[in-house]
Amino acid sequence: MNVRKILIAVDNSTCSEKAAKTGYELAKTFDAEVALVNIIEPMPATINQDLTLAPVFLESFDNSEENSHQLLKEIEDTYANGIKTTYLTVVDTAAHGIIQQSDEWGSDLIVIGTHGKTGLYHFLMGSVAEHVARKSACPVLIIPNKADV
Amino acid sequence: MNVRKILIAVDNSTCSEKAAKTGYELAKTFDAEVALVNIIEPMPATINQDLTLAPVFLESFDNSEENSHQLLKEIEDTYANGIKTTYLTVVDTAAHGIIQQSDEWGSDLIVIGTHGKTGLYHFLMGSVAEHVARKSACPVLIIPNKADV
Repeated sequence: MNVRKILIAVDNSTCSEKAAKTGYELAKTFDAEVALVNIIEPMPATINQDLTLAPVFLESFDNSEENSHQLLKEIEDTYANGIKTTYLTVVDTAAHGIIQQSDEWGSDLIVIGTHGKTGLYHFLMGSVAEHVARKSACPVLIIPNKADV
Repeated sequence: MNVRKILIAVDNSTCSEKAAKTGYELAKTFDAEVALVNIIEPMPATINQDLTLAPVFLESFDNSEENSHQLLKEIEDTYANGIKTTYLTVVDTAAHGIIQQSDEWGSDLIVIGTHGKTGLYHFLMGSVAEHVARKSACPVLIIPNKADV
């Protein structure tokens, strides 16, 4: 397995901290570079009473982009330890966005955390990690939240 | 990530060859040992006309165990290159058997291949890799059949 480019999918949950920690450790082992990808999921536009779209969406997106940049910076500061890091932030649905960014950036490996929910909650919420694993063109390392990494 | 014990899930499909190749390469990188796990899924017992169970099951199981041992030996011969290898063969459903063997053996990492089927086929067949990823206590590396490893 030739691992030169590791894409780590992160959000602001505890399970993505484990993914970040593991992904950067592997980057060090394989002398690889890292891309941190954070997906901003689109929210429904607000519609005014006169049926024009409210301007809330663009403003929220600007906020989201700023928050996303802040999140990626915190993760890099905590785990990168000098490893070359690229930030990828896009508006998309989570699994689709991760796969598309991975394909464009040319990842050799995707690292992603999961809560490992089962049953109804899992059925309702879907599972980003599973969707990514099913669609990815490269190997996917899934870090369960309960894993001791 | 402390990787001392790597469990590789294999069957006689092409995608488990990629899992075996990758798993052994990682074992070399991390100086880890390997367990090859192969699950023999139970088949329905045949029932005689007088409602006694036909003895076909045990005989088939003996054959299956022999075939499983042969499969694991071929994989070890092809990929192990001197890395310490344990064989684990059990009768169980695939995902449950892999998780149970992994927990008992104390894996730090599970490596498993997947065909990445989607849609109706996926819905009907389920996906062993996804079930394993959802239930595992340790990180799971999923190798898509289309991955170039």
